[in-house]
Amino acid sequence: MAEYRTPLRDMRFLIYDVLDFESHFASLINRELVDRALLDAILDGAGQFAERELWPINRTGDAQGCRLVDGQVQTPDGFKEAWQTFVASGWSGITGDPAYGGQGLPHSMGLFVEEMLSTANMAWTMYPELSHAAMNALDTHGTEEQKQRFLAPLLRGEWTGTMCLTEAHAGSDVGLLRTRATPNLDGTYAITGTKIFISAGDHDFVDNILHLVLARLPDAPPGTKGISLFIVPKRTVAEDGSVGEDNGVNCSALEEKMGIHGSATCVLNFDEATGYLIGEEHQGMRCMFTMMNAARIIVGIQGMGCAEAAYQQALDYARERLQLRSLSGPKNPDGPADPIIVHPDVRRMLFTQKALVEGGRALAYYTVQQADLAEFGADESIRQDADAMLDFLTPITKAFLSETGFESVNHALQCFGGHGFITETGIEQLVRDARITLIYEGSTQIQALDLLGRKVILTQGKALLRFVGAMRAAAEECADVLPEIAGRLREVADEWGELTLTVAASAQEDLDEVGAASVDYLMYSGYATLAYFWARMAMVAQAELAAGETDHFFEGKVATARFYFARLLPRAEAHRRAALAGAESLLALDQEGF
Amino acid sequence: MAEYRTPLRDMRFLIYDVLDFESHFASLINRELVDRALLDAILDGAGQFAERELWPINRTGDAQGCRLVDGQVQTPDGFKEAWQTFVASGWSGITGDPAYGGQGLPHSMGLFVEEMLSTANMAWTMYPELSHAAMNALDTHGTEEQKQRFLAPLLRGEWTGTMCLTEAHAGSDVGLLRTRATPNLDGTYAITGTKIFISAGDHDFVDNILHLVLARLPDAPPGTKGISLFIVPKRTVAEDGSVGEDNGVNCSALEEKMGIHGSATCVLNFDEATGYLIGEEHQGMRCMFTMMNAARIIVGIQGMGCAEAAYQQALDYARERLQLRSLSGPKNPDGPADPIIVHPDVRRMLFTQKALVEGGRALAYYTVQQADLAEFGADESIRQDADAMLDFLTPITKAFLSETGFESVNHALQCFGGHGFITETGIEQLVRDARITLIYEGSTQIQALDLLGRKVILTQGKALLRFVGAMRAAAEECADVLPEIAGRLREVADEWGELTLTVAASAQEDLDEVGAASVDYLMYSGYATLAYFWARMAMVAQAELAAGETDHFFEGKVATARFYFARLLPRAEAHRRAALAGAESLLALDQEGF
Repeated sequence: MAEYRTPLRDMRFLIYDVLDFESHFASLINRELVDRALLDAILDGAGQFAERELWPINRTGDAQGCRLVDGQVQTPDGFKEAWQTFVASGWSGITGDPAYGGQGLPHSMGLFVEEMLSTANMAWTMYPELSHAAMNALDTHGTEEQKQRFLAPLLRGEWTGTMCLTEAHAGSDVGLLRTRATPNLDGTYAITGTKIFISAGDHDFVDNILHLVLARLPDAPPGTKGISLFIVPKRTVAEDGSVGEDNGVNCSALEEKMGIHGSATCVLNFDEATGYLIGEEHQGMRCMFTMMNAARIIVGIQGMGCAEAAYQQALDYARERLQLRSLSGPKNPDGPADPIIVHPDVRRMLFTQKALVEGGRALAYYTVQQADLAEFGADESIRQDADAMLDFLTPITKAFLSETGFESVNHALQCFGGHGFITETGIEQLVRDARITLIYEGSTQIQALDLLGRKVILTQGKALLRFVGAMRAAAEECADVLPEIAGRLREVADEWGELTLTVAASAQEDLDEVGAASVDYLMYSGYATLAYFWARMAMVAQAELAAGETDHFFEGKVATARFYFARLLPRAEAHRRAALAGAESLLALDQEGF
Repeated sequence: MAEYRTPLRDMRFLIYDVLDFESHFASLINRELVDRALLDAILDGAGQFAERELWPINRTGDAQGCRLVDGQVQTPDGFKEAWQTFVASGWSGITGDPAYGGQGLPHSMGLFVEEMLSTANMAWTMYPELSHAAMNALDTHGTEEQKQRFLAPLLRGEWTGTMCLTEAHAGSDVGLLRTRATPNLDGTYAITGTKIFISAGDHDFVDNILHLVLARLPDAPPGTKGISLFIVPKRTVAEDGSVGEDNGVNCSALEEKMGIHGSATCVLNFDEATGYLIGEEHQGMRCMFTMMNAARIIVGIQGMGCAEAAYQQALDYARERLQLRSLSGPKNPDGPADPIIVHPDVRRMLFTQKALVEGGRALAYYTVQQADLAEFGADESIRQDADAMLDFLTPITKAFLSETGFESVNHALQCFGGHGFITETGIEQLVRDARITLIYEGSTQIQALDLLGRKVILTQGKALLRFVGAMRAAAEECADVLPEIAGRLREVADEWGELTLTVAASAQEDLDEVGAASVDYLMYSGYATLAYFWARMAMVAQAELAAGETDHFFEGKVATARFYFARLLPRAEAHRRAALAGAESLLALDQEGF
């Protein structure tokens, strides 16, 4: 099996040099202080765990998949042992509240760790990720008693969690769900219904699983306004926290699917299972978004992570594989052919991967920096601004990183030629795994409506305007050192604003204009955003080179920024034109004309 | 399992109304005359075979895959029986020379049939396709005796054929191959070596398999100039055609791969197997291209075919699946939600599929029309012109239809949301199957170099200029009826010529500029080409509507043309800018900087 190396150098470049997380961490309140020594220790430790424990069971996990035996899910070989090591090493509760056994680190530290794990083994990392989502909901909406009883065992890694939203007829349209919650006399609820696509819905890691279930109370209004959120453990939990009998939650089937075979995707039947209301009645959607928003950034990271793992393999292969001669003369005259990395189009594919992966990582880290500030910023205005920026960037991070992640793994596969199509190489698994990231936690289509409708038009583009301001400032800053980048960055900043105004104006006439423009608008926004981050990365790297640093690492950053502006950013123009094309060409045709 | 319907109406629209195959067939020499009755009978017959025999074993073939048992490949359930029906129905030799038992139909008839079969079951159709490639090589380069002995049984479907090119260290770089051919005293050769990725390399359909093997004679010069082509049967064939013992050809392994599981991908060991030289010594590459060029159009059709099958499923689903309300008000007020086809972005995905599939089909049919004319045109100048056009369009057809086919099946999967990721739906299989089309028979990268280097620059753009002339003529023709399409079509015609001149000029300075521009140039060419075919299709449909025809079919064609120009053609601009970006941003960085 190919080697995998946690990209610590790239991560540190962003964390320390580009986004200055040291000052950022120092500015937070109500969190443990993360200094450089702690940060380095966490990065190194999680990186080693990812390389040594998770990467070796990634291919085998795909080949074996999960099995349903007597109503219990069995995970692939090594998955349970990896969980035990993960918990024993103290990773399960690093961002949790110390009052309940967590380590009190900022959200971003959790993201760095989850990135490393997910890149090495996306399927395995689904289990702690779903737990993490459940922890977020409990932390934000749970009562003190619920936190002691349910959050603490999650943080300790004794149990895991899930998010139970989807039903067969209710996917993107959560409001259609039918699972019922009937009040019991003791203040609990009897939960009855069937949920599908429940990731980590059952497994053999631990004794108990805490399902966070959306359901309707008897008096609930229809649609999303009548949904409440319930804690439903797989096995009953007494008030003292001891685990008892089965609670009427049954995994009736496992989905066979395209990828992430090591992740159990369950059909769960709830048969009068005892549940505990979390948050207010009929406020389940709000609670759900607490879970979803963090999870959306993670899904972007999953897409980018698949692309990172694939890029590493493709790069190694491109350096070793000897095929054909360079058109401009042999570069390896003593060998039978040149390594394929000499061919311009192989380089185009490698640069595309590098630009999308490293640019995408910068966007995700910046977004999670906003998540830290939104909750732990030093004052209210910082928190509010960060919250608006987080809201704005979350759909871009989720959808753009998953879309470009899938593109990127396909470039990696292409670098391998026919060998990429063969299972043994391991690349095709990454293509299959990455494909789900465009769908779950809200598809690209849902993200695009959220971005353009709620996060841009409804807010009068407040966060967008601040981001565009930062783009202009960055363009100023690099005008002397990287003039070609600066000029284009300024143009895109202007253009993004104009595009938004035009689309918003036509949306006032007809709301279908939002849907017609949304995905192209989101993709445009993604390319614009990465232009900003590549300019910032190039500036930092250029300063190092100017100071006499001769490391190829910095040359690579500047060259990739140039590549991005020359060869990927032009795609923004295609998306801009398509976003401006309007709804008419989409809607004029009758259904029968398709 | 979802239903599949051969898209006969779309095929006939192109064949009769847009590309006028009736007159075309009437103009050919040395072929059986294909009149409308015969053409219709063939389309109907092959369509029924595809729907009834091949589609039902497509999903099961994927699930079962091929197995290697005691050195023999066993194909999935029903595959062998479908072959027997195929042969009994007389499909195996329809385009073959009547002198050897073929039916003497033009190449295009073979393509129409292979399209229908491949769309219903790409993996199964690999077997007749590889046979077809071997027939082409024998027909063009075989001696009279070889044709009687080897071609006739292929045409009768008693045997099948393969193409044995690739070795582990020799993929795109065929010149590196090492398989040896040592002359025997009787004029035959002893073939020794190992070939990989041999599609249909072994199976249980028939008793004998004819391998067409590239190998080196003892005195061969290095590289591609020292390669010869040999006929190597799996079992020996006496001069009277009777089949004897094993001939030293052994399938030592089957590849596990991402898709087309029903197609056997073999490692073949040749151990002093008796072979027969076909064509001249050291002229194997030329003979190989006879097989490859036809196969390349087929691979484009495979990509498009996966997209057609997926589009049908996505369209059915989009009409039935109820999720969310239209932003502009309920369209299905009595139901719990609107069918997702009302949502503009679902329509964008459906239109994208329709535009790419039907536009791609037009390009492929036009290309194979050139193949007919290149061989069976009435005079030498027709044949030469058609040959040049065929050369020019083949790499575009292969690469653009496979790239956009893969994009298209992914849109179909996305229309299904989470259900698309589930194996049961059948869409994810089409994504996995389609992925290989970007690689085999020359990857997109190889096609792009072939197009820009050999087919455009080396010929001074002769065929390109003629095609661009046809674009201008079409723009004239539709200037009154479809002015917005006409204007943009004229612009693209001009722009394509200018882009070519600019890239060719920089290639004169540095050959790496060819590689740097090639894939974006090819994709640009694909979008430009489809603009031409969509304009032609829209003109025909518009004329029907103007004549009072109220069929939604024609409205669909005009609407899709409008959609194509508004929302897909803008991508050409991104490729144009990228193609003009030059080699410097790709090549300046040292390998270590990646």
